Amino acid sequence: MPLTFTHETLGQRVLFGAGLAAEHLAAEVQRLSARRVMVIAAQAERELAERITAGLPVALLHDDVAPHVPVEKAQQARTAAIGHGADLLVSVGGGSTTGLAKAVALTTGLPIIAVPTTYAGSEATNVWGLTEAAQKTTGVDARVLPAAVVYDADLVLTLPVELTVASGLNALAHCVDSLWAPGADPINQTMALEGARSLAVALRGIVTDPENLQAREQALYGCYLAAVAFASAGSGLHHKICHVLGGTFDLPHAQTHATVLPYVLAFNAPAVPELAGRLATALGHLQGSVGEDRHAAAAAMLNGLPVAEPQCPAAAAVSALNRLRRDLNAPTALAEAGFTEGGIPEAVKRVTAVAPASNPVAVTEENLTVLLTHALHGSVPTHPYHPVPAPTTH
Amino acid sequence: MPLTFTHETLGQRVLFGAGLAAEHLAAEVQRLSARRVMVIAAQAERELAERITAGLPVALLHDDVAPHVPVEKAQQARTAAIGHGADLLVSVGGGSTTGLAKAVALTTGLPIIAVPTTYAGSEATNVWGLTEAAQKTTGVDARVLPAAVVYDADLVLTLPVELTVASGLNALAHCVDSLWAPGADPINQTMALEGARSLAVALRGIVTDPENLQAREQALYGCYLAAVAFASAGSGLHHKICHVLGGTFDLPHAQTHATVLPYVLAFNAPAVPELAGRLATALGHLQGSVGEDRHAAAAAMLNGLPVAEPQCPAAAAVSALNRLRRDLNAPTALAEAGFTEGGIPEAVKRVTAVAPASNPVAVTEENLTVLLTHALHGSVPTHPYHPVPAPTTH
Repeated sequence: MPLTFTHETLGQRVLFGAGLAAEHLAAEVQRLSARRVMVIAAQAERELAERITAGLPVALLHDDVAPHVPVEKAQQARTAAIGHGADLLVSVGGGSTTGLAKAVALTTGLPIIAVPTTYAGSEATNVWGLTEAAQKTTGVDARVLPAAVVYDADLVLTLPVELTVASGLNALAHCVDSLWAPGADPINQTMALEGARSLAVALRGIVTDPENLQAREQALYGCYLAAVAFASAGSGLHHKICHVLGGTFDLPHAQTHATVLPYVLAFNAPAVPELAGRLATALGHLQGSVGEDRHAAAAAMLNGLPVAEPQCPAAAAVSALNRLRRDLNAPTALAEAGFTEGGIPEAVKRVTAVAPASNPVAVTEENLTVLLTHALHGSVPTHPYHPVPAPTTH
Repeated sequence: MPLTFTHETLGQRVLFGAGLAAEHLAAEVQRLSARRVMVIAAQAERELAERITAGLPVALLHDDVAPHVPVEKAQQARTAAIGHGADLLVSVGGGSTTGLAKAVALTTGLPIIAVPTTYAGSEATNVWGLTEAAQKTTGVDARVLPAAVVYDADLVLTLPVELTVASGLNALAHCVDSLWAPGADPINQTMALEGARSLAVALRGIVTDPENLQAREQALYGCYLAAVAFASAGSGLHHKICHVLGGTFDLPHAQTHATVLPYVLAFNAPAVPELAGRLATALGHLQGSVGEDRHAAAAAMLNGLPVAEPQCPAAAAVSALNRLRRDLNAPTALAEAGFTEGGIPEAVKRVTAVAPASNPVAVTEENLTVLLTHALHGSVPTHPYHPVPAPTTH
């Protein structure tokens, strides 16, 4: 295949180190020669923020943070930044806190150092969002990309396992969907596959031992890469489906993502076998070790014949993802989330209208109906979805 | 292992597309709102440069390019840039041409769009170099990183196969050495492994069919990643050894790199098995397909036992690299390049003095002597180099 693509790599420093947030922050503040730091942290993180910024020249700590960055909160924060003569923003918190810092940076041009306390990933993108009268506006601007991100696994150690797994699977969906999204290219695919690799290891580790600090930081690393890949590649079919299911049918975000992902993978993987094989490896699939085909492979080996891959790459990828979901006790059926058979035609109509032209398999009402029917009932995804089986007539 | 590292991602746009140089250049010039372009191209590339910049607002074409960027040439180019009121530099050429554009950018702050016509990689780094009175000075500066790089495989299609393989193996050495260099981290390791994967595919393709445009652009892509990874990770043991062999013994650059690499890999790989396994996969090693262990693996399979990897990851990586070198007809012994047994003690002394503390295996005079002795004679590298065998006493 010809390599024709444009890739924009966003320039940013990232600092990883458990227990090193204060030290790394101090180093970055010095590197940026800042003298009047505006710390942004919600009240829940205020104490933490005070602790890790104790050594910095803090001009003010702003704790008026609300979800989805309401415009009036953004205005107040901008006014405070200017009023205090801030020359640097340090955000300590999750997506809403990073988002508020971005809103300030958007109009003031102040640099941001982000210290994430969740796995949201906003810190690795140049996307901003503001909400006014329940209407969300988003945009892309170089000024809102944090100059540096300080990742400290100590700060996510107390996040509940369930929430961590949900965030992690959401990040994994970013990775997988990045493989075929409209802006997919070999560079963001590489980041996405490395993200998937890290998340598979990390999430299994966290479920086994929630106190496992190394697994927590591996998860932070995977979520960071997922954000980098997704910001570059954009929304693929998976995110279009989940957006419709969430928007039109009000299904819960994390559960929907975790459920739908393997069905979309099974749908697309046969058309991108090389990527599917790399994803299977990233998710921990070991060639030659899949149960049912051991005897056939062994017989071939003994007869000196070429050993067939026990599974085709697409099936290997799907089964590796399903094994991971099983290990994480992830949801498997949209029915559990409240979706019903009756919703399928409407969902199909809405998704086909927005399905990306870049999708490796052409989306039709028929094959999308099969996909959603499988996802509804939690049937283990098989492929091909194409040729299309007879429509179900319940 | 704890994830403690600082990684700086350099912000840059890269545009890949065979035959699209003129089109991509025009788009980038417009994006940067440039009105007075200074084109820098050596006389050999002048015609090409005129062709692909025909649609741009060119203020001047500067063709006074010399190897290693002599200071006086840099001064003349800077004066020309200022004299013509240039607001953008477009370099068309190899490392010396990109280097001259960087020298101009260093003092003027003008942005660069680089159009490489070799596999040098300088276009992906923020490193500049200047030569004065046979003395080379290098430095790192954000201003010299090209804002955009336009890669067009048509421009490298006529490079001789031998030169392409030499450049490609040099880039592969950047990738492999990046795995354990002083600044190695998971991000530049990921780029390095993707670079190795691309180069392995590309170089085999070019040797099989020199006109294979897709292999040529795959090679450009691999060299780009090699440069990104190496610029971030720095010089590891391999480059320290080659620097000594080139500097003290005047051995030829490309040949030395191609010869030494598998010996350094065999030296380090046992200490970094996970990376070695990923490198083996990147270089095309297929698990379960290595000849001699088929029967053992088959017996294990039939008995329902876990199937042992046919080779340990380190051996798999080394054998994958050696297979690639064989396919490319790469040199295998330093003796062919003019190195002799008598040079080993001096080389060992000099390398141990500069061997990076980050190297995964501690470098001693003993194990380095073994490494260089193997490389001298072209013996297939085996491991372990440690415990140290009895010193050779020729």
